[in-house]
Amino acid sequence: MLLRVGCVCKKGHRFLLRAFSCGVAMAKSKFEYVRNFETDDTCLRNCYIVVRLDGRNFHKFSEQHGFVKPNDERALALMARSAGCVMEQLDDVCVAYGQSDEFSFVFKRSTNWFKRRASKLMTHVASQFSSSFVFFWGEYFTHQPLLYPPSFDGRVVLYPSNHNLRDYLSWRQADCHINNQYNTVFWALVQKGGLSTTQAEERLKGTVAADKNEILFSEFNINYNEEPQLYRKGSTLIWDTTEEVTTKKVKPPNQSEREVHKTRIRRKITTHHCDVIGNQFWEEHPDILESD
Amino acid sequence: MLLRVGCVCKKGHRFLLRAFSCGVAMAKSKFEYVRNFETDDTCLRNCYIVVRLDGRNFHKFSEQHGFVKPNDERALALMARSAGCVMEQLDDVCVAYGQSDEFSFVFKRSTNWFKRRASKLMTHVASQFSSSFVFFWGEYFTHQPLLYPPSFDGRVVLYPSNHNLRDYLSWRQADCHINNQYNTVFWALVQKGGLSTTQAEERLKGTVAADKNEILFSEFNINYNEEPQLYRKGSTLIWDTTEEVTTKKVKPPNQSEREVHKTRIRRKITTHHCDVIGNQFWEEHPDILESD
Amino acid sequence: MLLRVGCVCKKGHRFLLRAFSCGVAMAKSKFEYVRNFETDDTCLRNCYIVVRLDGRNFHKFSEQHGFVKPNDERALALMARSAGCVMEQLDDVCVAYGQSDEFSFVFKRSTNWFKRRASKLMTHVASQFSSSFVFFWGEYFTHQPLLYPPSFDGRVVLYPSNHNLRDYLSWRQADCHINNQYNTVFWALVQKGGLSTTQAEERLKGTVAADKNEILFSEFNINYNEEPQLYRKGSTLIWDTTEEVTTKKVKPPNQSEREVHKTRIRRKITTHHCDVIGNQFWEEHPDILESD
Amino acid sequence: MLLRVGCVCKKGHRFLLRAFSCGVAMAKSKFEYVRNFETDDTCLRNCYIVVRLDGRNFHKFSEQHGFVKPNDERALALMARSAGCVMEQLDDVCVAYGQSDEFSFVFKRSTNWFKRRASKLMTHVASQFSSSFVFFWGEYFTHQPLLYPPSFDGRVVLYPSNHNLRDYLSWRQADCHINNQYNTVFWALVQKGGLSTTQAEERLKGTVAADKNEILFSEFNINYNEEPQLYRKGSTLIWDTTEEVTTKKVKPPNQSEREVHKTRIRRKITTHHCDVIGNQFWEEHPDILESD
Repeated sequence: MLLRVGCVCKKGHRFLLRAFSCGVAMAKSKFEYVRNFETDDTCLRNCYIVVRLDGRNFHKFSEQHGFVKPNDERALALMARSAGCVMEQLDDVCVAYGQSDEFSFVFKRSTNWFKRRASKLMTHVASQFSSSFVFFWGEYFTHQPLLYPPSFDGRVVLYPSNHNLRDYLSWRQADCHINNQYNTVFWALVQKGGLSTTQAEERLKGTVAADKNEILFSEFNINYNEEPQLYRKGSTLIWDTTEEVTTKKVKPPNQSEREVHKTRIRRKITTHHCDVIGNQFWEEHPDILESD
Repeated sequence: MLLRVGCVCKKGHRFLLRAFSCGVAMAKSKFEYVRNFETDDTCLRNCYIVVRLDGRNFHKFSEQHGFVKPNDERALALMARSAGCVMEQLDDVCVAYGQSDEFSFVFKRSTNWFKRRASKLMTHVASQFSSSFVFFWGEYFTHQPLLYPPSFDGRVVLYPSNHNLRDYLSWRQADCHINNQYNTVFWALVQKGGLSTTQAEERLKGTVAADKNEILFSEFNINYNEEPQLYRKGSTLIWDTTEEVTTKKVKPPNQSEREVHKTRIRRKITTHHCDVIGNQFWEEHPDILESD
Repeated sequence: MLLRVGCVCKKGHRFLLRAFSCGVAMAKSKFEYVRNFETDDTCLRNCYIVVRLDGRNFHKFSEQHGFVKPNDERALALMARSAGCVMEQLDDVCVAYGQSDEFSFVFKRSTNWFKRRASKLMTHVASQFSSSFVFFWGEYFTHQPLLYPPSFDGRVVLYPSNHNLRDYLSWRQADCHINNQYNTVFWALVQKGGLSTTQAEERLKGTVAADKNEILFSEFNINYNEEPQLYRKGSTLIWDTTEEVTTKKVKPPNQSEREVHKTRIRRKITTHHCDVIGNQFWEEHPDILESD
Repeated sequence: MLLRVGCVCKKGHRFLLRAFSCGVAMAKSKFEYVRNFETDDTCLRNCYIVVRLDGRNFHKFSEQHGFVKPNDERALALMARSAGCVMEQLDDVCVAYGQSDEFSFVFKRSTNWFKRRASKLMTHVASQFSSSFVFFWGEYFTHQPLLYPPSFDGRVVLYPSNHNLRDYLSWRQADCHINNQYNTVFWALVQKGGLSTTQAEERLKGTVAADKNEILFSEFNINYNEEPQLYRKGSTLIWDTTEEVTTKKVKPPNQSEREVHKTRIRRKITTHHCDVIGNQFWEEHPDILESD
């Protein structure tokens, strides 16, 4: 209706403009009730808010872009770089953990970013991560152009206690361990052992972890525990505070020149490839978690 | 604890490998309970699911990247291109509508994508849109490099009836109209009228829409209604089905060669810059909406 | 701590009273942050809100209170009476449907009772129904005292369209039909046929509805379709508007006495035991549903 | 449609019965899709689940039933009795706290009752409380019949830590204190001081807690801190475990008779009217809360 008024205008320009404008103003306020259909998805207070991203169809994506198997260092570095970019934008992320094509971002339990609205938190993380992944692609894949824009989906999970949160991160790291161990043997059998992928799969069917390490050791002389930590433990990003001392020469009027030292506390992101299941990491970084 | 077992290993390699592996397997299952903290966010059935994205800090972003005011055709085209990329990935989006730095994606009410999980739908849209925006940037901004990865946040809103959904789209288009009208006068006053931005703001304070059109017409000889539809109406993306007839020559054994016609129905995305508030658009495209 | 201050008071009474009081005031405001842990559970607009109650452990309850099998008229009447009591308290319930130990209350799609908060709606319905059930018990069970307070649990379900809502009610009535048919044969076999409950169960295993009607007809001379509608169709409560004309004699000063008629529209609840699956009921009562 | 088939039956009885039955069976499965509109409202794991009930229109209810002001012991006792009845039905309630016309029920953080479904938990509590209130009314109000069935509404709030939960209970007890103090002075002014309710209100406007105690002490010789704990602290219900030793004489074959002692642990509900803001209560009852 609104625009039909505008379209049929033939005569008095001024009159119609006014009629039209009133129409639009009225129209907008008439439609605005639809805002009330939005529901509140505020996250429960005093809980850690975890946003986990997972690459979509990354099996295919990794093949099309020639990822090295079982671990492509460029891809892992690009993932960590994109995660760092998310943390810089959302500095209430107290720890992020990534492995393979997934990354988890933990917002501190007292965060009030986006008023704790789940939808805002997860879409912002998914968006910033994805745009960063494309933006920094060329820095890591110097000879491999990106063929199409990839996608990551996300979810939000709340954890009410430090204990639950640590168990969550332990779960993801245990998952990293199990998958990486499997992939390491699988690709050794294929790349060095000459098996087809079907044969390798067949060979590993029913084996427990110990059997896999045994195969690696006895057949390929690989000690799994000496594989790079990056592969076995994933990447953990946290904030580190460092004191930065700058020295400036000042010469106040009627005084001789002297040096002034200024100490500034800087937060910067550091990346670790260590165990997060045991207590050591958490004891060394007591500021990551807040007391219950 | 898990990894301490691995670290203190001193004696029998094989034995320890097995112990270690059991540890990991046990550990993972011990931690897996954290999955149950995830909550179900399935969208109510038989409702349209709208995901709306908004650019974050795009005022600053547009200035840093030299966007033409009041409308940058490159940016609008890149937004529409990214939206099309989302639709191609998620073909249950029945209509998408964009204006300025926002884009709304409407999933058909019967969709079962991601089992209607709100978090998956909105993060996937936000991610695909953002990675596409960066990926295609260079095609539209040929002389302006992208300085940093931008971000879009999103939300999900459900609409139970066709009436409500159309009111939602009308609301966004009325918003487009009102903002564009303001911006058109504002930048005319600044760019052609020589006013500072503060003066222009002052001049427009308290004016109604008709006053703005009047300024445009009497002072700058601009008839607002003749401004490009793209600016005044935004961009509406829908699926169009076309029949594609291919002709092939076949020669069956012992028969003379003949032509075979094959008709294939193809869906492709088309972009419109027309009014979506009135009935005409919906009557011309009866397949967009499903009956209540 | 707060109250210890109050307890250790030894000296100056007045001083301590003031200290104590400040303590309480401060304390309350200190604790009040816990309000923010409450989450918003507003029901999506423009959807029917259905609250369904189910008796808890009513199998046992009905045995302990000597309910007549397969249908106890007193219990069914008490259920309907309690439902009516809920509707009188919450007059935005446009229709209620009950059978066996369950009752569904449908709030009109435009209701704004309790700001559409799901928790308030369902607890109020559950509470009012339960207190009414106990309150009116004696009117229906004149010789059977209530042995303990029974309980009903509830849930909320939203339906976006008239079609969906009618399907919901049809589902409940089809359930009523199927259960009642089974129970009618089952208890005929037990009460008239002399079978034990186990034998009756065994006999009915694998029979379809038609077989059951056949047993009723050929063995007990019961035509299922002539059983009371109350049992076969359940109870549907709606609001009926009637015009009530009252006549009053008035005598204005200096005028002769005359009759004045006053028409008042009254809403009152009526109970029906008819089919709600077909169109007839809805065509006869066009005001129950609102257009989509 | 379904039932029209049943109604128009004129000829072959058996044939039609079968047709009809198939219709119903088909119909029910055709409607059953509406179940999927129910949404999952599982409460976040490892959080305390608090259900709080509030009397609806209890101001009016208390006047109509002649409640003694400012505190009616019969009503408070009936509230506590009804709360106890809820706890007996739902023994995962670890503590309940009530004051005035409200009662809060705290489910232990590890509870799995009703699979932690919020709607089931709160409606069951509301229902059981309400039916108990009516059921036990006569035991407490021996000379005052219940005039109509009262109603309580409820809500669910989650608390992730022991600290938060204790703050919740402290909040309710501080509320009890403040209201009771106000009411005690208010009714003293009215009942003993001869003021009208409006005058009493006027008199108390702007007074702080200390002023109120002063009025009580100087004008009515009432020391607020000596008022009954029940009024000042409300009622806290918890589970107590007691060992019950029963002695039985047994005489095994070919042995002389001897006494056998059997120890059974019994849980029973105890009611306390003490401070729950300080630590003492929690230290004396360390089993109420579970560690974080």
